[in-house]
Amino acid sequence: MNRIVVQYFDPADPEAFDVRYRDEHVALVKAIPGLVDFQLSHPRGLRGVTPYLVVEMYFADEDAVATAMQSAEFAEAGKHAAGFEVASTALYISAPQQA
Amino acid sequence: MNRIVVQYFDPADPEAFDVRYRDEHVALVKAIPGLVDFQLSHPRGLRGVTPYLVVEMYFADEDAVATAMQSAEFAEAGKHAAGFEVASTALYISAPQQA
Repeated sequence: MNRIVVQYFDPADPEAFDVRYRDEHVALVKAIPGLVDFQLSHPRGLRGVTPYLVVEMYFADEDAVATAMQSAEFAEAGKHAAGFEVASTALYISAPQQA
Repeated sequence: MNRIVVQYFDPADPEAFDVRYRDEHVALVKAIPGLVDFQLSHPRGLRGVTPYLVVEMYFADEDAVATAMQSAEFAEAGKHAAGFEVASTALYISAPQQA
C-alpha cells in the first residue's frame, strides 16, 4: 500500500480550517480515483515541529498513486487546498513497511 | 488505534543511519510494551520539508501509549535514538480516523 501524506502547519484560524476541510475539502479528496483509504489526525506534539493536521491518502500501489496525481480530481483538490490559510504545508509519498 | 510517530530529518550519513537503525534500534523499539504494529518508511518529498525516516509505532489505545511511554524500554529506545546524527527529530502522538 502506498500513500500520499499531506501535513498542514499552523492554521491562522484552526476552527475555520477544520470547518472548511470537513465541509469542502473531504469530498474533493474522496473523488480522487484509486483512493482506497483516507485517514485524518490532529497530532499532539511532544518534540519538534508538529503538523496541525496530517492527511493520509492510501492507494493500492505506486502506479495508482501516479495515476491519482495526474487526475483532474487531484488537481481540483490541490487547487482548493491552496486556499487554506496555513503557515506551510508538506507533501510526500511513502510506502510504510513492517519493521 | 493510537500511534507514536517519530520523524528523523537530514541524517549526516544516511547509509550509516539506516544500518544503525536496522541493526540496533529496531530491536529496542520492538521491546516496548504494548506495541502492536511498527512501520517504517523513507518518504519521497514533493513539497515542503520531508523527513528522511518516518517511524510509526501503533498501540491499542491512548492508555497503552501512556503505559509504553512510561516504560523502561521506551526510555532505553529514546536514549539510543539520541545517538543518531540527524539535523532534527519530531515526535507526536495521533489517532488517525477515517475521513
